Amino acid sequence: MEWDAWGVAEFRKQLSPQVLSLLSSALGVDAEQSPPPEESAAVLRPTNLTEGHRTDLDDLIGSEHVRTDDATRLRHAGGKSTPDLLRRKDTEPQDAPDAVVLPGSHDEVLALLRYCAAEAIAVVPFGGGTSVVGGVDPARGGFHEVIALDLRRLDALLDLDTVSGIATLQAGVTGPQAEQLLGTHGFSLGHFPQSFQFATIGGFAATRSSGQASAGYGRFDDMVQRVRVATPTGDLDLGRAPASAAGPDLRELFVGSEGAFGIITEVAVRVHPIPETTAYRAWSFPDFATGAAALRTVIQTGATPTVMRLSDEAETGLNLALAGDVGGESPAAGCLAITTFEGTAAHVESRHAEACALLAAAGGTDLGEQPARSWEHGRYDAPYLRDALLNAGAIVETLETATTWSNLSNLRTAVTTALTESLTAQGTPALVMCHISHTYPTGASLYFTVVCAQTADPLTQWAAAKKAAGDAIVSVGATITHHHAVGRDHRPWMSDEVGELGGRVLQAVKDAVDPTGILNPGKLIP
Amino acid sequence: MEWDAWGVAEFRKQLSPQVLSLLSSALGVDAEQSPPPEESAAVLRPTNLTEGHRTDLDDLIGSEHVRTDDATRLRHAGGKSTPDLLRRKDTEPQDAPDAVVLPGSHDEVLALLRYCAAEAIAVVPFGGGTSVVGGVDPARGGFHEVIALDLRRLDALLDLDTVSGIATLQAGVTGPQAEQLLGTHGFSLGHFPQSFQFATIGGFAATRSSGQASAGYGRFDDMVQRVRVATPTGDLDLGRAPASAAGPDLRELFVGSEGAFGIITEVAVRVHPIPETTAYRAWSFPDFATGAAALRTVIQTGATPTVMRLSDEAETGLNLALAGDVGGESPAAGCLAITTFEGTAAHVESRHAEACALLAAAGGTDLGEQPARSWEHGRYDAPYLRDALLNAGAIVETLETATTWSNLSNLRTAVTTALTESLTAQGTPALVMCHISHTYPTGASLYFTVVCAQTADPLTQWAAAKKAAGDAIVSVGATITHHHAVGRDHRPWMSDEVGELGGRVLQAVKDAVDPTGILNPGKLIP
Repeated sequence: MEWDAWGVAEFRKQLSPQVLSLLSSALGVDAEQSPPPEESAAVLRPTNLTEGHRTDLDDLIGSEHVRTDDATRLRHAGGKSTPDLLRRKDTEPQDAPDAVVLPGSHDEVLALLRYCAAEAIAVVPFGGGTSVVGGVDPARGGFHEVIALDLRRLDALLDLDTVSGIATLQAGVTGPQAEQLLGTHGFSLGHFPQSFQFATIGGFAATRSSGQASAGYGRFDDMVQRVRVATPTGDLDLGRAPASAAGPDLRELFVGSEGAFGIITEVAVRVHPIPETTAYRAWSFPDFATGAAALRTVIQTGATPTVMRLSDEAETGLNLALAGDVGGESPAAGCLAITTFEGTAAHVESRHAEACALLAAAGGTDLGEQPARSWEHGRYDAPYLRDALLNAGAIVETLETATTWSNLSNLRTAVTTALTESLTAQGTPALVMCHISHTYPTGASLYFTVVCAQTADPLTQWAAAKKAAGDAIVSVGATITHHHAVGRDHRPWMSDEVGELGGRVLQAVKDAVDPTGILNPGKLIP
Repeated sequence: MEWDAWGVAEFRKQLSPQVLSLLSSALGVDAEQSPPPEESAAVLRPTNLTEGHRTDLDDLIGSEHVRTDDATRLRHAGGKSTPDLLRRKDTEPQDAPDAVVLPGSHDEVLALLRYCAAEAIAVVPFGGGTSVVGGVDPARGGFHEVIALDLRRLDALLDLDTVSGIATLQAGVTGPQAEQLLGTHGFSLGHFPQSFQFATIGGFAATRSSGQASAGYGRFDDMVQRVRVATPTGDLDLGRAPASAAGPDLRELFVGSEGAFGIITEVAVRVHPIPETTAYRAWSFPDFATGAAALRTVIQTGATPTVMRLSDEAETGLNLALAGDVGGESPAAGCLAITTFEGTAAHVESRHAEACALLAAAGGTDLGEQPARSWEHGRYDAPYLRDALLNAGAIVETLETATTWSNLSNLRTAVTTALTESLTAQGTPALVMCHISHTYPTGASLYFTVVCAQTADPLTQWAAAKKAAGDAIVSVGATITHHHAVGRDHRPWMSDEVGELGGRVLQAVKDAVDPTGILNPGKLIP
């Protein structure tokens, strides 16, 4: 990925004059597009890595896999949140890992962790680097040195059990690599989060990722059958059956542990045959509440679409306005819902028929296939659009949460109000959009996208809005994150999430597996 | 429940002369039926409870809720495994809790735990007392006194969110009580394990129970949205959304913690409207492997029956032979499969049609509705039949496990061989039967029922067979328990299950919440 933006340069977007004009008139964004900064303008603090440690790391995994050059360090200096990208472009000296190490096996990961624990070197596990919550921030904790442990060389499909539908993948396999490795055998993982093109299997597990097809294939944590974890105090290999009553499910402690308890090196996940067929159908609802109730009926009845999403009026409207820029279409006002259905022909036909009947009965207007196909076609474009908007002087950021169906409207109002009031009070009126992208029988996620003009200090500007939104989320009893994880940015709300004793339990687990505290300091644990 | 048997006296079964004759001729069981022993023959070790502790407990929760009479102690002296029942009937002095306390609220549970931690009194949480793994064994650990903490007074429906489909139930609510409380509002929990008639919500959560309708409504751990837990060091209230990425899922540490980490006092669970309709269909398969492959196709395709089971040839044959005794019918040889489908009329119709087509294509012969209805009618009878067989001089016991589909045949062979060889070597040839009762896309459970003649020392006899079976299970990589939990009896295999470091993690969590180790000593943690 590029050092200062999402993705790769060839997909960078330009904003049309119409969009720039709209940004200026509606939100007061300075329509002067700045060129992206040059990489040479970025200044890194010099590496702290001692000569002795460098030599030892070379001996452990080979000198070609220990990198201290600035280009590599800069590309491991953080994730891809809007604040991360703003920090990257700053020309003041910035922090970065003192070295980037690229082990080639589970045993090398284990050896590195033992070495770093003995030598008091902090370790930040690094997969695709797509965190938007500061999860790969090169925080040192109390340590003099910090290294990024990049898992990209662990990129193999270790086993495929076609009868059980279980693939064992190494942690560094990216989303597209997984689909390619499995696709040659006729299988698919079916995990398509926004970060799909760059994020890794290990990262999906470590952060409880949820993909756009979660209604059909489940969240990534649901897919996980087994995890192999290296810690400074030894190995774990957890998960002996599809389901078990052999005590607490320790997989669920390490899934979601964000590198603070160990490094996941292998994951056995449920896979499924590449679907025979896919049905697409879009719907329009007169308002968000009606649409949400319709989605609820579908998921509670068990009609099991593969994808089911609902944009609110603001998001539906913006997509309509931006149709040319984001490659999508939004042919109706109101609230746009997208559904897809995958599987065998008979399966798709019956599920699609059942869901269509329920959605129509709940007040939906059938928009046909095209908007759903357009959504799928453009679904990885949003982060590129964000980079263009950031360069045009706008703040664009997203945040997400989840709650029960009965609390959903309350949550949406609370977060929308908090973001709007915070940013308006700072002199930058905001467009706040929302969608549901993950549904469960008992509730749903809400995903917010915020656009406003940058102030002179956009990091402080966004930090205030983010704090207001987080406080609003916990005040109505929702979760601080549905699928972005905790990292550095959600840590202030973890005590609300798990309680004081819950925090002590997390610390007790960490002390058992990482007694010196080298693993991903400053993340997750309240 | 009765002190020496499953359930209540009015449902006790008598064996027919034909069955007794079959037991004698096939397995060498002495066909002389003994009368059940008298309760007065049971001798309990005197209570250790000190006068001072008795007075303090009275002050904490009221003297009428502190019981030290032998009748109450005897009914809390253990669970309902076959070894438990054999021990109960022994006329040598037997162990029992020194007192049984019945708190009336979460706060009283918390106060009791704090008191017992301060006074070094072991606490065994007690729900329905249906454990078949020694989970409510009154073990003292290193403590002088042990009390059973019976949750039966926590029997309320605290909240019902009909929009989200979430009920908050207190831990002492039994299966039938839950259905009654929810039923008046048009809802059902849909959790029907073998222990349904007596087991409790708290016990379902603490042991990761799985009901016969797990294909449709999920395991109990899947249903749990939120748990409230009292520990000696404070409270936990875990679960803020249907799904979250806010770190490790601490619910999954306390669900399945079997009273060793705290006492679950409230559980918010997913519920669903009482189904509009139920479809029943039974199938016959020529052999177990063909039937298992058929079930696998159904669950991997997502045809989602509510119940789906498959008996092997031996179990199908015995059910046929015992039809008159167990109230069921088994009109075909081969392997009998049962399916049911619940939901709205449209939902049931499409799912049933899809599953029927798949099962027929996979080699099933349609047996119509009746065998499935008969199975449902008699599904809670087996433990009563066991009591009659125990009294007739037979050993009858069950054990269960789970693995991936590709390993299922291997597992079945290994366990069947281990049980058969162990019991045959002891001079008691055994009938070993097996069924699949819980299916997942990646694998299934196997449930074994063993019948043989009792030797002079049936506890030692069964212990040898159980050890052989457990060793066989872990040797083929399966889980030591799919839904019976760990308790005392599966603890020897927990190190195989979670590894040495996993065991240390469990102990670290216990030390954080229960530093004096009063909670359910001798269970779960390896």
